Amino acid sequence: MSDYSKLDSYIEKNLDENLKELARYVSQPSVSAQNLGLNECAQIVKEMLEKRGFAAEIIPTDGAPVVFAERSGKSDKTLLIYNHYDVQPPEPLELWESPPFEPTIREGKMYGRGVSDDKSHLTARLFAIDAILEQDGELPCNIKFVIEGEEETSSVHLHDFVMQNLDKLKADACIWEFGGVDHRETPMQYLGLRGICYVELSVESLSTDVHSGLGGSIFPNAAWRLVWALNTLKGEDERVRIPGFYDDVVPPTARDIEFMEKLPDVADEYKSRYGVKEFIKGLKGGVNLKVEEVFTPTCTICGLTSGYQGAGSKTVQPARASAKVDFRLVPTQTPADILKKLRAHLDAQGFSDVEITFLGGEPAARTDPDHPFVKLVVDCAAGVFDAPMVIVPMVGGSGPSYPFVHELNLPVVTMGHGYPDTRAHAPNENIRIDLYLKHAKHAARVIAEFSK
Amino acid sequence: MSDYSKLDSYIEKNLDENLKELARYVSQPSVSAQNLGLNECAQIVKEMLEKRGFAAEIIPTDGAPVVFAERSGKSDKTLLIYNHYDVQPPEPLELWESPPFEPTIREGKMYGRGVSDDKSHLTARLFAIDAILEQDGELPCNIKFVIEGEEETSSVHLHDFVMQNLDKLKADACIWEFGGVDHRETPMQYLGLRGICYVELSVESLSTDVHSGLGGSIFPNAAWRLVWALNTLKGEDERVRIPGFYDDVVPPTARDIEFMEKLPDVADEYKSRYGVKEFIKGLKGGVNLKVEEVFTPTCTICGLTSGYQGAGSKTVQPARASAKVDFRLVPTQTPADILKKLRAHLDAQGFSDVEITFLGGEPAARTDPDHPFVKLVVDCAAGVFDAPMVIVPMVGGSGPSYPFVHELNLPVVTMGHGYPDTRAHAPNENIRIDLYLKHAKHAARVIAEFSK
Repeated sequence: MSDYSKLDSYIEKNLDENLKELARYVSQPSVSAQNLGLNECAQIVKEMLEKRGFAAEIIPTDGAPVVFAERSGKSDKTLLIYNHYDVQPPEPLELWESPPFEPTIREGKMYGRGVSDDKSHLTARLFAIDAILEQDGELPCNIKFVIEGEEETSSVHLHDFVMQNLDKLKADACIWEFGGVDHRETPMQYLGLRGICYVELSVESLSTDVHSGLGGSIFPNAAWRLVWALNTLKGEDERVRIPGFYDDVVPPTARDIEFMEKLPDVADEYKSRYGVKEFIKGLKGGVNLKVEEVFTPTCTICGLTSGYQGAGSKTVQPARASAKVDFRLVPTQTPADILKKLRAHLDAQGFSDVEITFLGGEPAARTDPDHPFVKLVVDCAAGVFDAPMVIVPMVGGSGPSYPFVHELNLPVVTMGHGYPDTRAHAPNENIRIDLYLKHAKHAARVIAEFSK
Repeated sequence: MSDYSKLDSYIEKNLDENLKELARYVSQPSVSAQNLGLNECAQIVKEMLEKRGFAAEIIPTDGAPVVFAERSGKSDKTLLIYNHYDVQPPEPLELWESPPFEPTIREGKMYGRGVSDDKSHLTARLFAIDAILEQDGELPCNIKFVIEGEEETSSVHLHDFVMQNLDKLKADACIWEFGGVDHRETPMQYLGLRGICYVELSVESLSTDVHSGLGGSIFPNAAWRLVWALNTLKGEDERVRIPGFYDDVVPPTARDIEFMEKLPDVADEYKSRYGVKEFIKGLKGGVNLKVEEVFTPTCTICGLTSGYQGAGSKTVQPARASAKVDFRLVPTQTPADILKKLRAHLDAQGFSDVEITFLGGEPAARTDPDHPFVKLVVDCAAGVFDAPMVIVPMVGGSGPSYPFVHELNLPVVTMGHGYPDTRAHAPNENIRIDLYLKHAKHAARVIAEFSK
């Protein structure tokens, strides 16, 4: 690899100015869940990109607009960078030590809503570009940014946006919004996300709640209907009973398991952090627990609602009952197929009265851990972080990476400066400035090396 | 029967003054659920009884005090009258056409919280006593009143109160708090109440809610545990699966079914009023529906709570889940026995993690429809109401009559002036003054005839 001392030195010297730009960005509230400040924030993003010579535009969608920007470079290779300018709601406000939209630096950290997730991830990447432009006067490759405003509300319009802009978004590789180090300060490379199919199941058995002394013996009870229907979805053995549910499941490869084996055991941490007495399926820990956590599809009840839920007793037979259920999907399950099988199953089991409302979904998406771009990102990290970057072939969560992986056919990598106490989605969200510098330096190396 | 024209004439002539006394009683808020005005109201009740020459006392309990009063009469037979001075909360206030604690007469009705349930039932009975005392100067029999202040919050201390005062409450027959006419203006004689065993089932599987992307595949899910546990309690065939649940069930007698056959068919009314599309257990209507409604024990889910219940989706695996469940009991099931069997069943099914919280219970209680006191009350109604009183051997609801029937060994009858639009427990609760007069006249006849 090349000598990056000049890039590093630029980044170290210009930190204060860059942090001022980040502070301005964080001080603009942009809460997608509350439709607050989104257009104003998109405008700030556009200006930050234009300042670096990018052609930037604000593209409307059926929801919050997407900021798209591009700048050509020496080679014809193109790097696509995905970020989002929206943030989580700041509530509960009373738990913040400094106001969420007044970014504040204390003891080497900057605090503010959205500072980690993921406004600083954008500015760190812009910082890397600044360093390269300062050194070379031009970019070594084409760079495109796609920066959406609905990531914190499930990116509901992003898939359509990608499909409508396949040419515009054409690229050779993609850097995902965030990344970071674990508790050992080891940078992590998360390469796959499970898919999701989120539904609400609801039953209405009567037009009104009824005194349970009257209805209990003779009227259908919505809560019972729901319980019986749910019981047909998954048994106590944790096996999903919907016919065909597992048909399209691709099991982890030997290579996947090799990667999972290198990760630290999580059993004790999960037990103490979440109060788990016993894992399900007889799991004890080790690689089996780690593999099960991310490579199996799930059927999770996220919520139950029916009838009286206050203190003490109320003798009512509920007219309505509903459950929130999420299915985490693995390759190559799809939400559309699972929905179809769920409906057919409920009908076959006599639960045509159970209505299904689809609340969102996306298939799983994985990037090959042996893709050359992954190797490049891992290699570049070696010059910056204290420990070698570790590859995690799949994580249990979900996100909007599917169209990037499967429609744009890009390897998608994660890199960034998150850390275990970064408090994304919680009060006192913060970044560590030492890690922020590392991410900027890492990004500069990746951009510099990408077209070589 | 005797000539009651003098009693009737007294009641008609003194209506205005009696209604003033009722209005004063209703204007004193006495909301047991909110611990509002109970002592003040008990004092008013004591004064009303003392005005009629009763020896009255306010007896403390672990909850609201009970007003006990007695006055001797010519014979040594004793009539016990049960009422309550507490009322339901008045909320929602904005739906009242006149303020709930400012009793108002409009178009032959008096409106106010608690006016029907059951403050006017007490004053109508006092009105009957006034008429008899005016005519004869003394009572024909001993009369005792037991007037509690916790009926609207499940009479939690009444059973103990009765047990601690068995001698004091000794009597030959009991008039229950309320009664009334149905939509045909036919007075109804409700002679049995199902028992109840109300529990909360709760599960805690983790110390905190967890992101469903993490927990779904490896952590126990409280909502699933609850669904599976509930599913073992009752199957889709509506048969309760707790071993021994039906052991102590006494089926209805041929005489019971004879009474039930005389009642109007309710199928169409239930369908239109409650939006029932199909009754459970293949029931279509007729006597089968009526018998099933009241003579079978139930297991009803009254409420379900777990995890996320708001709009849209939240990907959370809930740490806690709970259900409110009521079992309506028939003779000779008991709450204590059902609780024991429920715990044993859950343990046997592997659900020791499901906690049971007992929220209240009372066994069923029935009065023999062929008891002479029932005949007396029915006969007396004939001289007052337009239609003959109809006997209902059992209703589906529950109430605190068990210690009166089974500890004091009393026949317990219902009589009163409720009617289908009386709106007990709802805004604009009211009584029809024409029916109020009928109840007072009916009560006067029952008291006069009781010791003959």
